[in-house]
Amino acid sequence: MSNERIRNKELLGKIMSAEEASTLIKDGMVIGASGFTPSGYPKAVPFALAERVKATDEKMKLTLYSGASLGPEVDGAWAEAGIIAKRLPYQTNGTLRKEINAGNVEYLDMHLSHSTQYVSYGVLPKVDVAIVEALAITEEGHIIPTTAIGNTPTFIKSAEKVIVEINTSKPMALEGMADIYMTENPPYRQPIPITKPDQRIGTTYIECGLDKIAAIVETDLKDKARPLTPTDDVSRKISENILKFFRKEVAEGRLPKNLLPLQSGVGSVANAVLYGLCDSEFENLTCYTEVVQDSMLELVRCGKANLLSTTSISASPEGTEKFIEEIDFFKDKIILRPQEISNNPEVARRIGIIAMNTALEIDIYGNVNSTHVMGSKMMNGIGGSGDFARNASITIFTTAATAKGGDISSIVPMVSHVDHTEHDVMVIVTDQGVADLRGLSPKERALTIINNCVHPDYKPMLLDYYNRAMENGAKHTPHILDEALSWHSRFQKTGSMKIEK
Amino acid sequence: MSNERIRNKELLGKIMSAEEASTLIKDGMVIGASGFTPSGYPKAVPFALAERVKATDEKMKLTLYSGASLGPEVDGAWAEAGIIAKRLPYQTNGTLRKEINAGNVEYLDMHLSHSTQYVSYGVLPKVDVAIVEALAITEEGHIIPTTAIGNTPTFIKSAEKVIVEINTSKPMALEGMADIYMTENPPYRQPIPITKPDQRIGTTYIECGLDKIAAIVETDLKDKARPLTPTDDVSRKISENILKFFRKEVAEGRLPKNLLPLQSGVGSVANAVLYGLCDSEFENLTCYTEVVQDSMLELVRCGKANLLSTTSISASPEGTEKFIEEIDFFKDKIILRPQEISNNPEVARRIGIIAMNTALEIDIYGNVNSTHVMGSKMMNGIGGSGDFARNASITIFTTAATAKGGDISSIVPMVSHVDHTEHDVMVIVTDQGVADLRGLSPKERALTIINNCVHPDYKPMLLDYYNRAMENGAKHTPHILDEALSWHSRFQKTGSMKIEK
Repeated sequence: MSNERIRNKELLGKIMSAEEASTLIKDGMVIGASGFTPSGYPKAVPFALAERVKATDEKMKLTLYSGASLGPEVDGAWAEAGIIAKRLPYQTNGTLRKEINAGNVEYLDMHLSHSTQYVSYGVLPKVDVAIVEALAITEEGHIIPTTAIGNTPTFIKSAEKVIVEINTSKPMALEGMADIYMTENPPYRQPIPITKPDQRIGTTYIECGLDKIAAIVETDLKDKARPLTPTDDVSRKISENILKFFRKEVAEGRLPKNLLPLQSGVGSVANAVLYGLCDSEFENLTCYTEVVQDSMLELVRCGKANLLSTTSISASPEGTEKFIEEIDFFKDKIILRPQEISNNPEVARRIGIIAMNTALEIDIYGNVNSTHVMGSKMMNGIGGSGDFARNASITIFTTAATAKGGDISSIVPMVSHVDHTEHDVMVIVTDQGVADLRGLSPKERALTIINNCVHPDYKPMLLDYYNRAMENGAKHTPHILDEALSWHSRFQKTGSMKIEK
Repeated sequence: MSNERIRNKELLGKIMSAEEASTLIKDGMVIGASGFTPSGYPKAVPFALAERVKATDEKMKLTLYSGASLGPEVDGAWAEAGIIAKRLPYQTNGTLRKEINAGNVEYLDMHLSHSTQYVSYGVLPKVDVAIVEALAITEEGHIIPTTAIGNTPTFIKSAEKVIVEINTSKPMALEGMADIYMTENPPYRQPIPITKPDQRIGTTYIECGLDKIAAIVETDLKDKARPLTPTDDVSRKISENILKFFRKEVAEGRLPKNLLPLQSGVGSVANAVLYGLCDSEFENLTCYTEVVQDSMLELVRCGKANLLSTTSISASPEGTEKFIEEIDFFKDKIILRPQEISNNPEVARRIGIIAMNTALEIDIYGNVNSTHVMGSKMMNGIGGSGDFARNASITIFTTAATAKGGDISSIVPMVSHVDHTEHDVMVIVTDQGVADLRGLSPKERALTIINNCVHPDYKPMLLDYYNRAMENGAKHTPHILDEALSWHSRFQKTGSMKIEK
């Protein structure tokens, strides 16, 4: 490997194969992996481990910590090999999801910013081995991260041993994007000195040290990036509705002309909103978010945004290629922060983030379910949405008004699981319209949501539920408890939330 | 009135009766009242207004903003007179509660720290008239507050006119306890310079100015303070369980010996915990909270705590008398902050608050209902519990394991309303025991809660529900949706959650 990648000759003796490095991982260990939203995660070593266990039937049960979701070489391969006992704080892998919902993996679906603290406070067991992807290792043994920071600084600090995967598919030009700043534990914690998204406050490397590095593996495996989600009509309508809302806020003096720092979840709606901003009159936008996808890169490319503060760059395969080609253009326009900083409530509250995240379902009083299909089945997880939603200046949740070809109404009498309470949810946007819930009582919210956001097929049904609930008992948040979850039960029994005629 | 109370002679001409001042309040107005948890709220003018409307049948519908709950001269008298159209962000009054649950008052049950922002961002209509209790008015027309700050600085800033009630029952010796620091709106907001509860960062007065003051009313009415709640056996057991938990955290190195800044809700359990700390080995405690009751004053008196940072002092009548007698002792040991600062997520996260609040009911996966009886009926409101719970280093919720003489289990299969999600709730303490949920998956949480916290009468029923849910479908968060809320329905129908034999 080049001197640029490994800057201390002492480390050359630690270079080994992925198979060899994987033998450092023993049954019962806690593993901390770099990576956030299939970006910057270790690939060669985790995959080699899974292959070995599959081939040998070796006894192996691990606890796996990460920043957020990892690629199939970890979450998929490990779930297939049956070696994950416990997983946190987030995942999006199909195979792993099946194992979680089959009850075979204990999954902690956590606020991402809590995950850092749980490790640094000692609430969670210490990391035995951290496996981290790197661009390079410095003379002092510190890690130059690739395209995601996540919890890597915390895991390295907590770990006994560190396995480094030097990924030569990621260009050295990425060096300098990282801005590593860590907080002390209370009572020694100081204010995080960020008042604007573009402030750099830390180092470009993650502290590690020569001694902790137990193995170095060279790889050129690319991140298994998510394919680009095409923008459909529903997403486009949601995007138009959000832009309308922004225009109203600016016109009424509640938002500056260049809005406030944008946080956006992932997926087709998020993409549509950001592409919509590219074609809009808004300028000088900033982003303070956890993931940058193709559409957010485009926001910079089209000149609408000056800066992206994030913990991960996770574009599609073609978007990644384009990004790498234009790396010199982007270099001073992206700051990669640890998720303790990108998702920190202190910063979110101070800079007044506009949080835009996706809901699985929303109820007529504004409670949001982001995680559980029909109350029990884990989809992905809450991710950073709660970190941002609670502390943002405006918290927006988006959803298509219906799902499953119209058999599910995304607006229901009562959600089957609550991830964001009525107290946190400020604005709901569907393809049908906008419900600005701020300043409204529960009853006012119900009528606003039903009138503005619900699909016409379900509007009479929801109105009927609400009207009968009003006659049923206490009238602060009218409900009929025997019926509140009946839409979900009906779907489970008949395949549709609609009432059979 | 003395020169000490009104320090600018120009203002003397604005002194009038409460009845006269109340005529400044017109139908349709938005009123911002000082006060937080029956402390420091205006009494004479609101009461005079209610009396007049009751006597004359004058048309009057008002929107009432406050810091938190107000005394019967406002919330009670106004609800009786039928003049509250809308109320936020918190209340505890019996008469008002009835009107809310009858559907006659639109009530916004909000995070207290959001209420400040909603006014300063312009999301809520501006305040027409602020009615504020004061110790004195300065030469410049600024307000020296009494025993609560709440949202008063924000309301005065927003208001067209200010009515000041100079309350001579509150001694001038209180002057100096207030520490008024306001945040700018984003994007201009700076870090709040607090790293320890004892730091003073602002002024001892609230900015107002001579011109805004429209009326001055003299009164000596005392706050209708809540009576002291006696400590019962159940509260004592909860307190012992919390202390056991603290000892374990200290022993295992997760908390310093003097713990971290304590935030405590109100009521008998909160009192029992704080009295329990008085009799414990813990020393050099600090408090960063929103309300100081008798037990927290006692924590200072007994030498265990050095400092109380709060937005309100709200002791019992006898506790208030004692506090006033000892005012010189307490003067440099209490800091009264605006609720934007006392409840600020930035500060809560940074200093690592230990948040202790009360739940109405909790489900087996750790979701907490703090507000809604049987899903629909408003009790009081979420208050500041969410501000603290989401951002604390440790979030504890307490409840007696049963209510209504055993006919209600406070632990249920699914809560009928969620105020604090499974993602926020870390530790549950009942008289039966402690469930430390940190680091546990939903299934692990369920068994820990059922085994440690549930009353023996309900344990087999909950285990039976959980076991059948495990056979029912997806096993991440096992539920039987048709049955999840059946315990509540059964209580509504039979008066007990127990199954009839």
